[in-house]
Amino acid sequence: MDIISILEDKKQRRALSKEQIAYFVKGAADGSLPAYQLSALLMAIRLNGMDARETADLTMAMAASGNMLSPDVGGVPVDKHSTGGVGDTTTLVLAPLVAACGGKVLKMSGRGLGHTGGTIDKLESIPGMQVELPEEEFVSIVRSVGCAVVGQSARLAPADKTLYALRDVTATVDSIPLIVSSILSKKFAAGAKAIVLDVKTGSGALMPTLEASVELAKAMVDIGHHAGKSIVAVVSGMEEPLGSHVGNALEVKEAIDILTGRAEGPLKRVSLFLGSLMLTASGVMKTEEGALVLLNRALESGAGLQKLKEMIAAQGGDPRVCDDVSLLPKAPVIYPVQAKAEGYLSHVNGTALGLAAQRMGAGRVSKEDIIDPAVGFVMEKRMGDFVKAGDTVCTLHAASMESAKETEQRVLDALTFTKEPAPKARLLYALVKPEGIIPLNE
Amino acid sequence: MDIISILEDKKQRRALSKEQIAYFVKGAADGSLPAYQLSALLMAIRLNGMDARETADLTMAMAASGNMLSPDVGGVPVDKHSTGGVGDTTTLVLAPLVAACGGKVLKMSGRGLGHTGGTIDKLESIPGMQVELPEEEFVSIVRSVGCAVVGQSARLAPADKTLYALRDVTATVDSIPLIVSSILSKKFAAGAKAIVLDVKTGSGALMPTLEASVELAKAMVDIGHHAGKSIVAVVSGMEEPLGSHVGNALEVKEAIDILTGRAEGPLKRVSLFLGSLMLTASGVMKTEEGALVLLNRALESGAGLQKLKEMIAAQGGDPRVCDDVSLLPKAPVIYPVQAKAEGYLSHVNGTALGLAAQRMGAGRVSKEDIIDPAVGFVMEKRMGDFVKAGDTVCTLHAASMESAKETEQRVLDALTFTKEPAPKARLLYALVKPEGIIPLNE
Repeated sequence: MDIISILEDKKQRRALSKEQIAYFVKGAADGSLPAYQLSALLMAIRLNGMDARETADLTMAMAASGNMLSPDVGGVPVDKHSTGGVGDTTTLVLAPLVAACGGKVLKMSGRGLGHTGGTIDKLESIPGMQVELPEEEFVSIVRSVGCAVVGQSARLAPADKTLYALRDVTATVDSIPLIVSSILSKKFAAGAKAIVLDVKTGSGALMPTLEASVELAKAMVDIGHHAGKSIVAVVSGMEEPLGSHVGNALEVKEAIDILTGRAEGPLKRVSLFLGSLMLTASGVMKTEEGALVLLNRALESGAGLQKLKEMIAAQGGDPRVCDDVSLLPKAPVIYPVQAKAEGYLSHVNGTALGLAAQRMGAGRVSKEDIIDPAVGFVMEKRMGDFVKAGDTVCTLHAASMESAKETEQRVLDALTFTKEPAPKARLLYALVKPEGIIPLNE
Repeated sequence: MDIISILEDKKQRRALSKEQIAYFVKGAADGSLPAYQLSALLMAIRLNGMDARETADLTMAMAASGNMLSPDVGGVPVDKHSTGGVGDTTTLVLAPLVAACGGKVLKMSGRGLGHTGGTIDKLESIPGMQVELPEEEFVSIVRSVGCAVVGQSARLAPADKTLYALRDVTATVDSIPLIVSSILSKKFAAGAKAIVLDVKTGSGALMPTLEASVELAKAMVDIGHHAGKSIVAVVSGMEEPLGSHVGNALEVKEAIDILTGRAEGPLKRVSLFLGSLMLTASGVMKTEEGALVLLNRALESGAGLQKLKEMIAAQGGDPRVCDDVSLLPKAPVIYPVQAKAEGYLSHVNGTALGLAAQRMGAGRVSKEDIIDPAVGFVMEKRMGDFVKAGDTVCTLHAASMESAKETEQRVLDALTFTKEPAPKARLLYALVKPEGIIPLNE
């Protein structure tokens, strides 16, 4: 076994054997293969592909490249994964709600990179919140509270850490076998038995076309299903930010606003839908309709908010933020962005808004950057809304007036207005299950 | 300009601009781009190709990545390049002959790698021979003697050094744009005005099929022609070693044997043919037929041998080896490999023989290995010959009896015998000129 013959085979579009895949995954995990050979192989995989058997072998080899957990959480461990959106805080809404309904949400999450935010960064805006916990403590919180959200452990699927870092700098992110194996290997290693995936589609998503996004969702569901997991995927839109709030503390605030019943909208709708899938996938409920009724009841009764408080307290954070969002970090400059002329908001460039928030300090340009938890903005209008000249379309929460002025232009550049009435953004495109694809139109 | 967008463009099969090509070539030459991004790009180029304009831009950028020489050699500087063969010592035969006919042979040559030998390693088996000379001294020898052969200067086309080393370890050697730019950039940087290429075809060659070898030859001739060079290419076979001798001192001996008139055969035939193309390409002679007559006269008169002596002396070596080949390094063990049964020698696996010589110590397995100049072997039979049981098919020159025994089996494994008469190996397939391809059948 040697890496040159593996490179040669994939270059010639031949399927790699299970042993060949195990060989290079081990080399990525233990550093025995140099980055320049791995990156050439990643490009060969990106261009010549992998079949379903190879992708499954790659996923399993990556999962087995580090510790494999079998956590006893007192139920079926369920996880949810989004391929990355702007203003997408579903985890913070659905994890406590699902826990309140009897689910066991075991969530390892990432930090934000590029134009998309990371749940871990958002949680860290809560005073005292710990996102790096020993495995036993993490599992124990899931068992007692019903949900916990921590950072990805370096001991799980270490091969992915090496390969992901290389993909990021070699233009090989957009490869279905590489995405599937990266996402699922971490879920498998963490011991998730039920998995709900939220695959974004649209400009700025991992896969730019709807067709490719559905293909990616199908590939993940197939591989998870064959690995014995209870797995479903939703294909959802990411043109417009899902929630109205973009920024770390602002998104925590929005999640709390939904759990208290103060806020409505697409973020709530999608969170409840994904939550219903988590409850059915983990066998807590039989039907998604029944699960939705249960989730709505947990929301109205305040049981969901109570679970969020319990989770924050268990992870060392200050649960009082749930009753008083003013305890969250606040930006010094609040600045309204006003429409220049009247019209219908026909398009919102979510990627551009994500990048604008990143530039304000809400995200990282390079891995070493420190995030400002307070900054970001609140979109006051959504696609399809009619706007008059002078209406506030967006409220900036900036670190300085200079930053606010800069961001104002970026936000305006990300919005398109038309004279004619424009439709609302599409939220949901498809539900992908092992037995087939169900079109959604919302 | 950034490397990610270059990777993205080539991944999407888009042609790279001249500026993009200059950017990554500079990054390869000065080390500002990491190996893992370059290797991913090499794989993308290998799989998605480059058009003629991109290949020309790549060649020019690589040539310009270091010093560009315009040597005054008192005539048209002519170079010959072979894509690498086993037992291929044409340079040592034709350089002195072409010089004796008035040509100016400016030859920078490589060391052996893999199963093919390197002219520089062969020359170093001559006592005292210097192959690393300052540029002025090298040029001055070409001017006064008519030929000099030295190692590739690190100051010429440094981008190639980085890219070639990466191609070797990432299975991206077999790419026409990468081969063309690697070979021609060095020739252009060294100041060659006339170039004769010997493109090998067959198993073990850079390009495995005749079609691909002709395509490679055509690509090089086109790019050289558009760069204003006088350039032709020969496509020749490499199944059987060209000469009968394989090994460093042994190949020097064979070249001397030909120049003294003691030896005949395919090596002489191909050397004279390539020499005639060098004389016409550099404008010394009008026709190849006339050039052949002149070369044969230089051989018969001893003028060629005299030039070899002068070149060796000018480069610090002992010219007496030309009159007494016993002054060359000699192996302690001479061992005959005998045929086990009678039959016609129907196929010789040149790659396997090259690897057998490499294992004996004639070549390097890794770059740091030190070559044993004395070892190798002499093939006593050629394809098509009839052999009786007990006939010596090959004489080994080994460092030890153990090495001889090991090599005996390797040599026998590389030979195929049949009951039926078998044809001789084909030497020449095509002559490729800017104006077209002329089939050859020899």
